[in-house]
Amino acid sequence: MVLSSSFLVLALLWLQRPVDAFTSNDRRSEARGDALYALKSKADQIVKSPPYKPGSMMAVTLETGRVPYGEESRKYRRTIFTYEDWVRHRNSERVRTNLKGMLFSGVVRQLRPEVALVSAVATTVLLWNGVVVPNAPVALPLLSMPSLPFMLSSPALGLLLVFRTNASYSRWMEARTTWARVVSQCRNIARMAASLADLSNPATRDALDQLQLSTWLFARTLMYELSGPPDKEDFEREVLETCKENNSLLARRILDSPSPNMSALAQLSVALQKVPMEEKARIETDKSIILLGECTSICEKIYSWPVPLVYTRHTARFLGLYMLLLPLALYEALINFADTQNSPIFHGITVVPISAIVAIFLFGIEELAFQLEEPFSIMPLQELCNDIKIGTKNITQWCVDGMESNME
Amino acid sequence: MVLSSSFLVLALLWLQRPVDAFTSNDRRSEARGDALYALKSKADQIVKSPPYKPGSMMAVTLETGRVPYGEESRKYRRTIFTYEDWVRHRNSERVRTNLKGMLFSGVVRQLRPEVALVSAVATTVLLWNGVVVPNAPVALPLLSMPSLPFMLSSPALGLLLVFRTNASYSRWMEARTTWARVVSQCRNIARMAASLADLSNPATRDALDQLQLSTWLFARTLMYELSGPPDKEDFEREVLETCKENNSLLARRILDSPSPNMSALAQLSVALQKVPMEEKARIETDKSIILLGECTSICEKIYSWPVPLVYTRHTARFLGLYMLLLPLALYEALINFADTQNSPIFHGITVVPISAIVAIFLFGIEELAFQLEEPFSIMPLQELCNDIKIGTKNITQWCVDGMESNME
Amino acid sequence: MVLSSSFLVLALLWLQRPVDAFTSNDRRSEARGDALYALKSKADQIVKSPPYKPGSMMAVTLETGRVPYGEESRKYRRTIFTYEDWVRHRNSERVRTNLKGMLFSGVVRQLRPEVALVSAVATTVLLWNGVVVPNAPVALPLLSMPSLPFMLSSPALGLLLVFRTNASYSRWMEARTTWARVVSQCRNIARMAASLADLSNPATRDALDQLQLSTWLFARTLMYELSGPPDKEDFEREVLETCKENNSLLARRILDSPSPNMSALAQLSVALQKVPMEEKARIETDKSIILLGECTSICEKIYSWPVPLVYTRHTARFLGLYMLLLPLALYEALINFADTQNSPIFHGITVVPISAIVAIFLFGIEELAFQLEEPFSIMPLQELCNDIKIGTKNITQWCVDGMESNME
Amino acid sequence: MVLSSSFLVLALLWLQRPVDAFTSNDRRSEARGDALYALKSKADQIVKSPPYKPGSMMAVTLETGRVPYGEESRKYRRTIFTYEDWVRHRNSERVRTNLKGMLFSGVVRQLRPEVALVSAVATTVLLWNGVVVPNAPVALPLLSMPSLPFMLSSPALGLLLVFRTNASYSRWMEARTTWARVVSQCRNIARMAASLADLSNPATRDALDQLQLSTWLFARTLMYELSGPPDKEDFEREVLETCKENNSLLARRILDSPSPNMSALAQLSVALQKVPMEEKARIETDKSIILLGECTSICEKIYSWPVPLVYTRHTARFLGLYMLLLPLALYEALINFADTQNSPIFHGITVVPISAIVAIFLFGIEELAFQLEEPFSIMPLQELCNDIKIGTKNITQWCVDGMESNME
Amino acid sequence: MVLSSSFLVLALLWLQRPVDAFTSNDRRSEARGDALYALKSKADQIVKSPPYKPGSMMAVTLETGRVPYGEESRKYRRTIFTYEDWVRHRNSERVRTNLKGMLFSGVVRQLRPEVALVSAVATTVLLWNGVVVPNAPVALPLLSMPSLPFMLSSPALGLLLVFRTNASYSRWMEARTTWARVVSQCRNIARMAASLADLSNPATRDALDQLQLSTWLFARTLMYELSGPPDKEDFEREVLETCKENNSLLARRILDSPSPNMSALAQLSVALQKVPMEEKARIETDKSIILLGECTSICEKIYSWPVPLVYTRHTARFLGLYMLLLPLALYEALINFADTQNSPIFHGITVVPISAIVAIFLFGIEELAFQLEEPFSIMPLQELCNDIKIGTKNITQWCVDGMESNME
Repeated sequence: MVLSSSFLVLALLWLQRPVDAFTSNDRRSEARGDALYALKSKADQIVKSPPYKPGSMMAVTLETGRVPYGEESRKYRRTIFTYEDWVRHRNSERVRTNLKGMLFSGVVRQLRPEVALVSAVATTVLLWNGVVVPNAPVALPLLSMPSLPFMLSSPALGLLLVFRTNASYSRWMEARTTWARVVSQCRNIARMAASLADLSNPATRDALDQLQLSTWLFARTLMYELSGPPDKEDFEREVLETCKENNSLLARRILDSPSPNMSALAQLSVALQKVPMEEKARIETDKSIILLGECTSICEKIYSWPVPLVYTRHTARFLGLYMLLLPLALYEALINFADTQNSPIFHGITVVPISAIVAIFLFGIEELAFQLEEPFSIMPLQELCNDIKIGTKNITQWCVDGMESNME
Repeated sequence: MVLSSSFLVLALLWLQRPVDAFTSNDRRSEARGDALYALKSKADQIVKSPPYKPGSMMAVTLETGRVPYGEESRKYRRTIFTYEDWVRHRNSERVRTNLKGMLFSGVVRQLRPEVALVSAVATTVLLWNGVVVPNAPVALPLLSMPSLPFMLSSPALGLLLVFRTNASYSRWMEARTTWARVVSQCRNIARMAASLADLSNPATRDALDQLQLSTWLFARTLMYELSGPPDKEDFEREVLETCKENNSLLARRILDSPSPNMSALAQLSVALQKVPMEEKARIETDKSIILLGECTSICEKIYSWPVPLVYTRHTARFLGLYMLLLPLALYEALINFADTQNSPIFHGITVVPISAIVAIFLFGIEELAFQLEEPFSIMPLQELCNDIKIGTKNITQWCVDGMESNME
Repeated sequence: MVLSSSFLVLALLWLQRPVDAFTSNDRRSEARGDALYALKSKADQIVKSPPYKPGSMMAVTLETGRVPYGEESRKYRRTIFTYEDWVRHRNSERVRTNLKGMLFSGVVRQLRPEVALVSAVATTVLLWNGVVVPNAPVALPLLSMPSLPFMLSSPALGLLLVFRTNASYSRWMEARTTWARVVSQCRNIARMAASLADLSNPATRDALDQLQLSTWLFARTLMYELSGPPDKEDFEREVLETCKENNSLLARRILDSPSPNMSALAQLSVALQKVPMEEKARIETDKSIILLGECTSICEKIYSWPVPLVYTRHTARFLGLYMLLLPLALYEALINFADTQNSPIFHGITVVPISAIVAIFLFGIEELAFQLEEPFSIMPLQELCNDIKIGTKNITQWCVDGMESNME
Repeated sequence: MVLSSSFLVLALLWLQRPVDAFTSNDRRSEARGDALYALKSKADQIVKSPPYKPGSMMAVTLETGRVPYGEESRKYRRTIFTYEDWVRHRNSERVRTNLKGMLFSGVVRQLRPEVALVSAVATTVLLWNGVVVPNAPVALPLLSMPSLPFMLSSPALGLLLVFRTNASYSRWMEARTTWARVVSQCRNIARMAASLADLSNPATRDALDQLQLSTWLFARTLMYELSGPPDKEDFEREVLETCKENNSLLARRILDSPSPNMSALAQLSVALQKVPMEEKARIETDKSIILLGECTSICEKIYSWPVPLVYTRHTARFLGLYMLLLPLALYEALINFADTQNSPIFHGITVVPISAIVAIFLFGIEELAFQLEEPFSIMPLQELCNDIKIGTKNITQWCVDGMESNME
Repeated sequence: MVLSSSFLVLALLWLQRPVDAFTSNDRRSEARGDALYALKSKADQIVKSPPYKPGSMMAVTLETGRVPYGEESRKYRRTIFTYEDWVRHRNSERVRTNLKGMLFSGVVRQLRPEVALVSAVATTVLLWNGVVVPNAPVALPLLSMPSLPFMLSSPALGLLLVFRTNASYSRWMEARTTWARVVSQCRNIARMAASLADLSNPATRDALDQLQLSTWLFARTLMYELSGPPDKEDFEREVLETCKENNSLLARRILDSPSPNMSALAQLSVALQKVPMEEKARIETDKSIILLGECTSICEKIYSWPVPLVYTRHTARFLGLYMLLLPLALYEALINFADTQNSPIFHGITVVPISAIVAIFLFGIEELAFQLEEPFSIMPLQELCNDIKIGTKNITQWCVDGMESNME
């Protein structure tokens, strides 16, 4: 372990040295720039600003001095990108940034048991073959394997791992698309109701407010069902606060419901019925509620059904056994190789860090799949709900203003 | 076989030893935690709780003392995940858990004939080349092959296997999506009917109950058609029980129908017509029935048409012949390799366990495809049907209450 | 050829020997079973029943004593799976069943010209290098190649082949999905018309029958357009028979139409207009006809446009040249390898069967793509049409009965 | 070059010799056939008929004595398949047909500059290493490289190439699907208008004709916008001809419009308004026009936005440099290999044809992507437009006849 | 660095020499052409015309004498293709054009830090192993590694990279499809309103103009939200200019809105309400506004949520460490290889350019993914907005003209 760490540390120190020596020349020639480069200098400025957004994992790490990981780190993965983030994302000197960030990486830290196990196997192989066998009174077999079985199963393993990751990524995309629809349909209910309602009726304004509240209730209850117990407190507080004025009875009923989201959906339906408008228009607006009901179903589907466990487990076992046996084949390759070198002992020892690095990368692909498989806890649902609350209010206001200026 | 098993057993014992020695240090430093780690400790608690959910295959195995497999094991694959499951899923020390679970794995047990065959071939190769040929009075040819043909066909085989698995996975996803739609449309029928019906009409309440019953009938008959004979008894009992009050005639007619699901769909249509409501609203609600009809069609399609058998069989033959010939190439590679080792006999013998392991993993990928190809028997359809029964009842109640408070 | 066949025959004989020796032990321990194993024994029973379904290719082969192949074999690929088939599909000892079936395989027989050609090249290489060159008075060059070009192009070839197969598989899936929609929309027209029609009008019953007939006509004419000339006779007979009562004029007009399916679609439209019902309801029902029109278009698209021929041909040429040159590289690898063996002649000769096996598998992937590219002739369209005929009749009946009990 | 061509010529001559010797035996046994083989003999007949459809590239090549290629060859790629084509497609002895067709292949001819360049590099490598270096007075470095960098980048290159091809194929599929929708929606407008129009109104017949003409105008203008200047003449002639009777003013306005397709869409909208029918029915029919408007947008999108050029160019550069350096690695592999052969010079020289063949296949995959990237010029749009013209006329006629028989 | 550059320069000079010597012969024989070749000569003409479109990056480079790169270069990637571009795209001698363009490539320039770092590592390896170690007084270990770990992880890395690129490409496609829908729905609103409005009402004309303006406002505000601060000035100027006549108040309100796009959507809704038309028709037209609201949501989703950073970073780290260690394995392979050559020093030195080339290609695939991940800044949104402004105006005009000629 000492060796492998020192190796990593060396590699990382290496990364710290400036590469500007190599690139400064070009930069100078660019300095003789013209207006064309205005954008570039702005981009440069963004790139050079402190690289970690408030709320990101890096920021939290620097602040608390410790890397949050496991379940907790998921909070810091709820990224929302803006223009500045994109510029930085595209332009940072990625190789250095990324390798520097490696030791702070949540994924890598999550993998410690696996990597430790592989390193332990590699160390055992090394000690057995290099210390025990040569000094044993009887002829003990070396722990080693030829590389052919690994060469032959490598494409299948690579495909299985990457397809598994893609299955998880598709789940994330479906969740993302579904929530985008939740946002657009909530806004649409507000827009249609406000522009089609009978504004001459004095009850309309109140009914529209009630409807707008109900869209938020729907989104927030959906978020709660997808977040599990840790969100319970926040959820109750928010609902009570938002409904405090004259809807506290409603809030209580929603909170007491065995299935808050279904209740909120029914409530949305009722609220729409209470808006005075033409029947035909109401039925068209109701179609957005149908879509919201489908969104609930899709989210429930993603949340309650993981990728089939037979798939996950077979991949994990294939990878696990592959990685546990790999040091035997690596040792063989390294020892043959080391014999041709001037410092065989040094080269033999590298079996440990090399096994560790391969373990980090292959187990890392699997870890990705686990991180993305349940997508809701790494999605900024809280922000989306707030967005719905504010957005529906604004749209209602704007439409009512526009329609009234029409009526005058 | 003895050797290969002992090899596996050793590998598994290895897995039992604590890896905490490697990770405890970090843990200690984390112990000086702060509020930030509250979530983590909760997660840890979940991870350390008994890892097998009631109803899962592991639980059944521990309870009955035997691993159910083949057809029967499919019952235990109908996983529904909750928050706790996700936390455990993401955080367990996967490599150890999975490798320990390997001997209990349904997939691996399902593969015994194939693995036994490959091991038999490997043993034969070993005995022929190592015992028969050297001692034969005449020069017999060795059973061996160069590795080139395997190297060249390995990418195509890997791709074919993984694409086949993905074809099955897509079928599973389509089935899952279709049932998510069944759930959302059944709920939607209840919601729309309850909020659009003419509640002043005294017959409405009964008609809504009838409609809600019909949505359940639809889902349950669909489940029955996708489950085959083993579900017959349960199906009949459930239908009779649910309809016992004043619908026993209906139940009988559904049970006697040559195509219960089509009858239930027609019944749903009739029940909707009986709800007193505006024509326009009824036609919009009817659209959910159209979608349910489409869901039936999609499920029938998945159930009655497997992946084209030419595809399945060509993959199976390619893989089968590849695996049966592989020991010949592995023997060659191992024997060359063993000559460079200090215990050639030990290394020569490893051809058997290595062949077996490669067989488990490659046949395992194909087995996955077979497990997922008919997705309905590994889906928790019973739970979904119950969910529909309760959900539609609740929604109807909430809407009726809400609308009536409106009318007052 | 003799050698390669004898090699295959040996391998297949090998497969015939019982593997039960390896698995019986476990089976015995399972025999001490309990109720839990009821399902298993039923499954076992299914697995042990004669494995070939009536109408499948295997059954036909056994019956006629010859394997139908080429165009004709497509008839026997129109598989419809039931519960029993799935149990057998998942549980049969696949490796043995599949390898035994290999010589009867339609795909393999279809490949005879290609495999013969590759074997011929391999034989020529063998004779030239092994007989002609050593005995020639002048120094002739050996026919051989290094393996590097094959190693480098192997991933690209594998990808190209498998993606081509997937393009064909997607066509099959699209066709399957489209026909599932044809079935569901035909049923839906019957359901909506029957439940929304004005049943008090005495003409309604006849009009519904006419409509139901028209849905069948639509499906049957679509099937005819996708089946080509061989279906002509059956098509005419069926149409005349089904319409014999009082629609013989209609049948004649459809048969004489230059585009029977378009005529049937228009006829469906006309039949719907003749059903007495509210205008709004009729227009909603008409939407199913719009979808049927789209289905026609999609089927025509699949049928008349193959995968771009440039794609197909480039893949075929790449594969063809690769396989024709492969024996040269295999010879080289085998001859180097054979020199290390005790029976070089035997091992040199294996270039022929090895080339043949690789040819079967790689050309087989391409053949799959050809088999699936035009999916309609391997789909059970006849059964789907019959299903529509009976299904629409039943649904109409059920709805009319239900609605009338309503009216009383 | 001479050598590499002669090599290719030899390989092709080889393909000309009959393989029937290998297959005739089976054929004879099949000749003792029964009724079951009727289909087969019909299929055989199709396969043996002149293999090149009129209008295909092969037919044009035979006719004019020269292979059209480049832009011009695209005309001959607008394949429409019928039953006979499918039978031939599935049954021809593909390997021979395809390899024979290789020299006439448009793709291969398109690649001449690339293949020539690679061959030139290979020849230079050969001459420098084999002639210049050995005879040079000073020690010159050999032009050669180890194969490792090629082995390592080979999977990434293969994936990139095949994914690029698939991106192009998806564009082709999207275009194909969009045009299938254009056809179905045009037909649908005719069908709905004819069956829902008020046929008692004397102006209806004319209005329906006008509508039917407008659907054709829409399709034809869309085709024109996707075909560019070469179609200009045909387009104008066709429009003037089709509209000659009493719509010449309309034709002129369309032709003079800055955006003929948008004008035709608006015109379609106007023509629908002029058909006497109920408002509700008209609005439903209008939905098909909305879909046609979307089809225009999708086609414009495909036509005006290629696959991002950064993608295309990076792939092209990666492949280009890979292929230009490949002869250096191939030379090394071949020269090592040749040393073990009895005719080293002959084997050394094969670096040129081998480089050329690998170049043809890898550049060929890229060429495929270029051929499919702009799909419209290889789609039979003219036939689809004609199909719409005739189809809508027939459907209108059938519906009007059917409805009138109704009214009597 | 000097060596690697000189190597690249040589390779590029090589590309400059005419390949016509190889192809001229064929060209001559084609010169005896006929009418069939008219198209070809036109295509040739296009291909030979100055190859860089105005506004493309190449054109800008030639004009300003410097290659714009980084953020700024994105402006020049907003390609719109026409017929001429397609002809040139398909026909240019791609290999030469592309390799010549390599030094000007934005992607390659973007990669300078990464490539410099890898080259530095390679140089260090070279100097250490070739200069320091041989001359050191004590035995220092060589910096070298066996190739096995690279061979085994190469497929997984290739897959991960290419799938990551495809994830980005899918985002680009989704963005492209969404904007195609924005265009088609904006046009559709104009078309439906103009053809369904009550033209006899004198207020209609003004209301249609207002509606048409609102569609443009919607598209332009959406573009602004997806372009970030750099577009602010242009956006304000354009909005003020377009609305200057009698909508300056509206323009001000939109510009002052916290969420201009939502305001524009509400405004569109209001503008539609103001058009005198039947309620049923208005509600159908409103559906296009619902779709536009969904488009906003999808665009926001793509813009604010990057591919999960865990995915991006793990890929980047895997690739980074792989490339930094690769020179150690390449050195080993090259040194073994160089020993067999006559100029070992020359061949040893090639480790630097070879590492650099592999770095360019593998990092280049990742760079592609970064370039496509945020697709809006490389999409010609400005042109699409203008297209909507002009298109809706023309369609409104045509429909109004057509409908009025109807009324006369």
